[in-house]
Amino acid sequence: MQSRVNLENITIVLKGPKYPGNVGSVARCARNMGIDRLAVVGAGALSAEEMKLMSTHVAAGLVENIRYHDKLENVLGEFEFIVGTTSRLGSVRGPVISPRQMAETLCDVSRHNRCALLFGPEDRGLANDDLRHCHALVTIPTADTFKSINLSHAVMILCYELLTISRTPGEPFTPRLATAAESEGMFQQIQSLLSRIGFLNPQNPAYWMVHIRRFFARTKLQAKDVKIIRGFCRQLEWYLDGAGNPQAEP
Amino acid sequence: MQSRVNLENITIVLKGPKYPGNVGSVARCARNMGIDRLAVVGAGALSAEEMKLMSTHVAAGLVENIRYHDKLENVLGEFEFIVGTTSRLGSVRGPVISPRQMAETLCDVSRHNRCALLFGPEDRGLANDDLRHCHALVTIPTADTFKSINLSHAVMILCYELLTISRTPGEPFTPRLATAAESEGMFQQIQSLLSRIGFLNPQNPAYWMVHIRRFFARTKLQAKDVKIIRGFCRQLEWYLDGAGNPQAEP
Repeated sequence: MQSRVNLENITIVLKGPKYPGNVGSVARCARNMGIDRLAVVGAGALSAEEMKLMSTHVAAGLVENIRYHDKLENVLGEFEFIVGTTSRLGSVRGPVISPRQMAETLCDVSRHNRCALLFGPEDRGLANDDLRHCHALVTIPTADTFKSINLSHAVMILCYELLTISRTPGEPFTPRLATAAESEGMFQQIQSLLSRIGFLNPQNPAYWMVHIRRFFARTKLQAKDVKIIRGFCRQLEWYLDGAGNPQAEP
Repeated sequence: MQSRVNLENITIVLKGPKYPGNVGSVARCARNMGIDRLAVVGAGALSAEEMKLMSTHVAAGLVENIRYHDKLENVLGEFEFIVGTTSRLGSVRGPVISPRQMAETLCDVSRHNRCALLFGPEDRGLANDDLRHCHALVTIPTADTFKSINLSHAVMILCYELLTISRTPGEPFTPRLATAAESEGMFQQIQSLLSRIGFLNPQNPAYWMVHIRRFFARTKLQAKDVKIIRGFCRQLEWYLDGAGNPQAEP
């Protein structure tokens, strides 16, 4: 199984959307996530201009290329794999998968099959009759107290999972850390400075230094951090030596 | 490290949002994903009524409880950990993590620390000066051709990752599959029926049966599927026996 979805084989299908702004937002989400195909069933009266207000000009072309159909069966006929979305659960609706499991499934399936992501109208969602066509049902996890997700937000989450699974996350970048020798030189300099200003107990200078060492150990100290800290210490020593300190002997 | 985020310690902070509808949509997303805290910086003139039009009534309470601030510093002061969002990358902005890596980070951090998710204005996003406050920077992956994500959609993706990491996905439900004995009885019945109607070559009945067995093997045949198929075969045999077949001998 390859680990990326063939986004060219993904079409978003909206059944009976009520608000043109939502369709425009869906187009924007799709374009954000690299999906270029949008079909709408049973919404012939929606204004394309109102859709474009929400799609932004970048996704306006996607709005212009929306394929409109009268019946769900007519648009679904060409797809080999159909994913239905539902927030209502029940024994009739059968087992559901998460958006992430859907993305994993489509990595394999989308290679050689045209896939539809099917969403229902804003108020009622997909009916049981619509779900009959689906090869998989996906439910977006929500808090128990408010399960109703805006249509375009639901589309965004599914498209985001499809894009994410196709990207290897950027390797966390860790700049070169300080060598033990670099850190040790810095600790000696700090200890000398802190002794000089009377911060450390001369009988037991190690006591506070342990805390300071632990603090720096936690920070994943970088080579350039050591340079800055040592520069600061040098400057402070220079000041204490009298260059800018009126209390020092001339 | 525990594997769930303490959502009570998460606050969404919007800096300078321009459109009240977006703030309302953000409130709805937050409530969908179980987050109850929203702060807004520098948007005193936005209409709460317009926000509520987009929040739905379920999230209207969250809109009423928005904490407004004049300066970013004033709101950020109380947080121990601040996540900034940025779509622009660059050496100045330093290493960024993905939304999923952010959720993993916050599993640990949110246990005992108040965390802010910081979003910039719709048109410009966060400035470098704002990012100085942040302990982590997150970028939502997008298609290279259209990186500009709507504010509430960006919020939704981050909140979705926080909720998702806190839920063990539902175990995929597999009903009881057919036993080998159940399947074998069905195959014998099918073979007998197909032989009777002349579909199988009597010299080599196994040839087609291999394909039929393979087909059913792929379907993860369930016990109840076997019952339905055998029922259909029985009915067909009954019909062929003459009960409803005018061609059969009486």
